[in-house]
Amino acid sequence: MVLLIKNDNLTDEEFTRYWLRIHAPLVKKMPGVRKYVVNVVKKPLNREPDYHGVLELWFDNVESMKMAFASPEGRITQEDTYKFASSMTSLYIDEYDMPL
Amino acid sequence: MVLLIKNDNLTDEEFTRYWLRIHAPLVKKMPGVRKYVVNVVKKPLNREPDYHGVLELWFDNVESMKMAFASPEGRITQEDTYKFASSMTSLYIDEYDMPL
Repeated sequence: MVLLIKNDNLTDEEFTRYWLRIHAPLVKKMPGVRKYVVNVVKKPLNREPDYHGVLELWFDNVESMKMAFASPEGRITQEDTYKFASSMTSLYIDEYDMPL
Repeated sequence: MVLLIKNDNLTDEEFTRYWLRIHAPLVKKMPGVRKYVVNVVKKPLNREPDYHGVLELWFDNVESMKMAFASPEGRITQEDTYKFASSMTSLYIDEYDMPL
């Protein structure tokens, strides 16, 4: 999971459009990605949100995550991130789906 | 989506145990919850993570989210959050599941 702050020179709409149309297809080409979710943060009234987006990427294990980011597709994807995001905070997650 | 920082007086294990065993059953009792995911952040080597947990809650719409938190079950849940978390950063999300 990565918390993103958008580039200052982009509007909210430009940030979202770049992410979904240009960046997301690059992410999907990375080897070993099992699931990919883009969370665009809705702008709160009268203030900037703490983050503008949260990406979620699933891999089989830590090793395949490292291989994905070290691959040519992974390096292209990471370079492209700076086209729309100015800050990235990575969180490595143990996910628990809580049945209702 | 809510980014949590744990209470200082809890170990990582106590934080996770309280969340999964005591707090999560309260969340599930809130009316209108459609899906609930608990993300426990893995401790990075040699530093504290920026956040210790990320909770994801899905509702049909903003109105049912507001009703859930205003309900008696919602108020009990929110009070209980302070038993294990010292800081909460809420992000309201438009989610895009990206087919691979």
